[in-house]
Amino acid sequence: MYRTHTSGELRIAHNGTVVTLAGWVQTVRKFGAITFIDLRDRYGITQLVFAESLNEQLEKQPIGREFVLQATGTVRERTNKNANLATGDIEIAVSAFTILNRSAVPPFTIQDDTDGGDDLRMKYRFLDLRRPEVKRNLSLRYAVNRATRDYLHGQGFMDIETPFLIKSTPEGARDFVVPSRMNAGQFYALPQSPQTFKQLLMVSGYDRYYQIVRCFRDEDLRADRQPEFTQIDCEMSFVDQDDILRMFEGLVKHIFSTVKGVNYDEPVQRMRYDDALWLYGNDKPDIRFAMQLLNLKKPHHVLTDKQDSRGLIDGAGFVVFDNAETVLAIAVSGCADYTRKQLDELTEWVKRPQIGMQGLVYIRCNADGSYKSSVDKFYNEDKLKAIADAAGAKAGDLILILAGKEELTRKATSTLRLEMAERLGLRNPEHFKMLWVIDFPLFEFALEDMDGGGAGRWVARHHPFTSPKPDHIDIMINHGPTVDDPEKYLEHPYAGIKANAYDLVLNGNEIGGGSIRIYQRELQEKMFAALGLDAHEQQEKFGFLLGAFEYGAPPHGGLAFGFDRLCAILGGSESIRDFIAFPKNNAGRDVMLDAPGEIAEKQYRELHIKPA
Amino acid sequence: MYRTHTSGELRIAHNGTVVTLAGWVQTVRKFGAITFIDLRDRYGITQLVFAESLNEQLEKQPIGREFVLQATGTVRERTNKNANLATGDIEIAVSAFTILNRSAVPPFTIQDDTDGGDDLRMKYRFLDLRRPEVKRNLSLRYAVNRATRDYLHGQGFMDIETPFLIKSTPEGARDFVVPSRMNAGQFYALPQSPQTFKQLLMVSGYDRYYQIVRCFRDEDLRADRQPEFTQIDCEMSFVDQDDILRMFEGLVKHIFSTVKGVNYDEPVQRMRYDDALWLYGNDKPDIRFAMQLLNLKKPHHVLTDKQDSRGLIDGAGFVVFDNAETVLAIAVSGCADYTRKQLDELTEWVKRPQIGMQGLVYIRCNADGSYKSSVDKFYNEDKLKAIADAAGAKAGDLILILAGKEELTRKATSTLRLEMAERLGLRNPEHFKMLWVIDFPLFEFALEDMDGGGAGRWVARHHPFTSPKPDHIDIMINHGPTVDDPEKYLEHPYAGIKANAYDLVLNGNEIGGGSIRIYQRELQEKMFAALGLDAHEQQEKFGFLLGAFEYGAPPHGGLAFGFDRLCAILGGSESIRDFIAFPKNNAGRDVMLDAPGEIAEKQYRELHIKPA
Repeated sequence: MYRTHTSGELRIAHNGTVVTLAGWVQTVRKFGAITFIDLRDRYGITQLVFAESLNEQLEKQPIGREFVLQATGTVRERTNKNANLATGDIEIAVSAFTILNRSAVPPFTIQDDTDGGDDLRMKYRFLDLRRPEVKRNLSLRYAVNRATRDYLHGQGFMDIETPFLIKSTPEGARDFVVPSRMNAGQFYALPQSPQTFKQLLMVSGYDRYYQIVRCFRDEDLRADRQPEFTQIDCEMSFVDQDDILRMFEGLVKHIFSTVKGVNYDEPVQRMRYDDALWLYGNDKPDIRFAMQLLNLKKPHHVLTDKQDSRGLIDGAGFVVFDNAETVLAIAVSGCADYTRKQLDELTEWVKRPQIGMQGLVYIRCNADGSYKSSVDKFYNEDKLKAIADAAGAKAGDLILILAGKEELTRKATSTLRLEMAERLGLRNPEHFKMLWVIDFPLFEFALEDMDGGGAGRWVARHHPFTSPKPDHIDIMINHGPTVDDPEKYLEHPYAGIKANAYDLVLNGNEIGGGSIRIYQRELQEKMFAALGLDAHEQQEKFGFLLGAFEYGAPPHGGLAFGFDRLCAILGGSESIRDFIAFPKNNAGRDVMLDAPGEIAEKQYRELHIKPA
Repeated sequence: MYRTHTSGELRIAHNGTVVTLAGWVQTVRKFGAITFIDLRDRYGITQLVFAESLNEQLEKQPIGREFVLQATGTVRERTNKNANLATGDIEIAVSAFTILNRSAVPPFTIQDDTDGGDDLRMKYRFLDLRRPEVKRNLSLRYAVNRATRDYLHGQGFMDIETPFLIKSTPEGARDFVVPSRMNAGQFYALPQSPQTFKQLLMVSGYDRYYQIVRCFRDEDLRADRQPEFTQIDCEMSFVDQDDILRMFEGLVKHIFSTVKGVNYDEPVQRMRYDDALWLYGNDKPDIRFAMQLLNLKKPHHVLTDKQDSRGLIDGAGFVVFDNAETVLAIAVSGCADYTRKQLDELTEWVKRPQIGMQGLVYIRCNADGSYKSSVDKFYNEDKLKAIADAAGAKAGDLILILAGKEELTRKATSTLRLEMAERLGLRNPEHFKMLWVIDFPLFEFALEDMDGGGAGRWVARHHPFTSPKPDHIDIMINHGPTVDDPEKYLEHPYAGIKANAYDLVLNGNEIGGGSIRIYQRELQEKMFAALGLDAHEQQEKFGFLLGAFEYGAPPHGGLAFGFDRLCAILGGSESIRDFIAFPKNNAGRDVMLDAPGEIAEKQYRELHIKPA
């Protein structure tokens, strides 16, 4: 052992003890003939004091920042206590020291507020990882890992490892593939998730499975996507949706309690997908605050069960609203006194390409009960009041209204809602609120076929193993998937089929999602057919699963959490990269390793491939 | 919920309770008008009794083996109790049932003694996984996983995930590689181990790291090798070898205690590599029994510190011994009465190609104190007695002697020793004995260069990051790696350099190994150079690590356990495949998935490769 104690554990009770510490030099300060060094390790920082007698050695062996130092000395009480440091009551009067390793001057400062840019920090990730912030992030990640395992173990789940070298069955995302040396012309694929394996484990009777497991998707990397990412992957047999929701909201509550010290004891709300879109414009609403959408107008063919309030705006001759497919309003609390300049700035904000709206209509609900709007010309005070009342506005609030194409407008209003909440301080990252979104559509219609045919086709919104709602199974069985007019796909019966699928949303972020699975061979075949797989392709790609369903497959379901994102949100960050020890950049490169890289001619030969 | 209880938990105390169970039909038996079904789930088996009133439904919905059944009924005491079953005191008088899913007749019986051959069981692995033996294996694996995490967590280790898409730096084994779509002509590699990452984490100050992590090696698969396998991977900073040995023998003891209920409280012996070869002919000796080798003769250039006992055999004119490079003997306890036939059979056994010896010499140490040998012609009783005494034989023992080339003979004697122990019942799989083998050679000399040059070169016995013993560092610094005469490589100073490396051996199997690492840039460069990497290659392949060593790398070391093998040995098996949920066969294929497989033309195009 190079040390008797760590740099985080010495207290006044150790006064007089002779100790040896080993760690990194955080700072070196000289006061007259005395040298002070803050020694750092994973566990903390301890002040070392080098008396004059050591100056000869210090001159011969000068010590710099980030040197690795071993020092022996006696613990003594500090005259100048540092209340910000756990070890701040003591210091070590050093009697002997050894430089275990030297350090060049780091290319950036090893502190929370570093002067290192993103590229530099990634290239020297081993130094970036020394920064307290990154250490806190990885410690939190480990704590979440540990809490997850403890909870699931307590609930009877077994960690069962599934293979990484599997078969390429590209359905949704693109697979990473691995050429096989021993099987010329053939490739393994890296799993996008252990989905089919965990289902097979249910067929095998393992009842409750989990894994914290790496997954791979070769997609173009949008901000905050990684080609390899980690899932908490779970599956249970003999359960219905309610069993699963209760089990896994329990998991997140356990994580809150053990990792964050947050006692989350309120019930977790459940919201239908249609209601989420109707009330928040979004299938992962942040419900820490209300600010629900007033649907002044929406097209008849979407959210068909919902009635809009078009009576409040129709007949006024305001062509913007009259021509719009969709008109949505939100009431922003206490903002009636926004200045002209502030409103102009907001208008510019919604007109940015990322939002894409043409303009913004406002109604001030003045404190004196009067109303003032940018469309006073078309709506008198009574009409404005009626809209304000329907939006749930009170005196002092500001109503913002967007109008345009359905999808664009709903999304823009949702984004505006989040933006206003942010400005009002309603999105405190240390305030957590979960929400289950349920009853998702089983299918989405992809207007552009991936192979360029362009006819459009149904794709699984969740994945092809998701079960329809029991009373929607007949719709699938009684109708074929063919869509005659892609423009009118919403009129096809498949558009109305809901899935036994659910997402867990935390503070407006989807942290997990899953479904009750299909476990009958016939229904699974019907599902594959709906997605355009003929019998031959079904057999080739998923024959093992269809086969397994013939030998007593139990009812089962599960879900997966995005582990990186869950950690990021719990850590109060929006970026998953800060919570991954060795992340890749947006081009999928590890700039520290300089990977990917070229391979030798011999490797090409052995793998039966050549450069294109 | 489909059930109120599992099939493993009902006891006489539940008498009279109405319960619902769900599970698989193990057996269906009819006695007169009554039907008995054993219902199975992960947790056990419960007997269901279907009274006559259900016969109408049973006729319409006949139930077969492996059907998935949900049954509701009342718990009642059995008249015919089954003491072999945890639930054997009770049965369920069924009032209603639902067939949740049907099953085809399984292609083999779902029992410990199955009639399924290896190929069939692998193709239908989801059924094989239902067999009690496989379930026990995977449960044991999970228990070892859990015990490992608990121990390491308690010791302050952090699970930190390292990347799977890294850079190809083939040194020892072949890498699996992954073509990059976004970086044309470039490839990721899958990690053979997270070695360099865990070292970087030590440089970053994480102090104690662990991971239970998948690793990949594209090697020709000998029996019981898998292309993907799992390691318990650990690293610590500011430690010497003794710290690591104590920490990780503690881990295995903890696993013994929690998983096997074995209180392993004896100290773990440590043995130098040279002594292991000398005494057991092997660097992973099974020390559950003694039967140590008597080195009658060995060449001067191996195990140079050891003195053989050639005086006991020299000068007798026995040309077999005189011409042999090496002569080794073992004393087999109580086998003096082996018959001629048994000895002939043993002689054939050592002459098999796998062993490759020319013959076998024996000495019977008779109960009456006389000696009888196959070489009586050359050695009188006094000489036989002297050999027997040196071998530690007592009256009633049988001495077996092999002679030939050093490497072959030592290996053969080691194998013969294990064989005799097996026959004598000295290798009880439920008797566990650990051993640390230490002081391994730093280098091995590879006579055949992998590129076909044939000059021979030094390769790292452990890996290129292993530190030499401190007092051997000068040998490396003061000598270049060039070997003039490959035949005499043992005379080169590098052959004598010992490493700070250690293997943990359990019952004759290497279950883990590791080393104290190099942490100084200069020494690491010297090591790379010894292995034939020039400065350019060093920088290209390991520049990130050399760079990291410039910024305050602490002394550190670690080890990795072969998790699959550890589980197999704890489970009393020699085959790791039985302890992996979805293993591959010897051709690296998953026969259930039929992977690897072909990929689409489009995938080739996107990945910038074509078939060779």
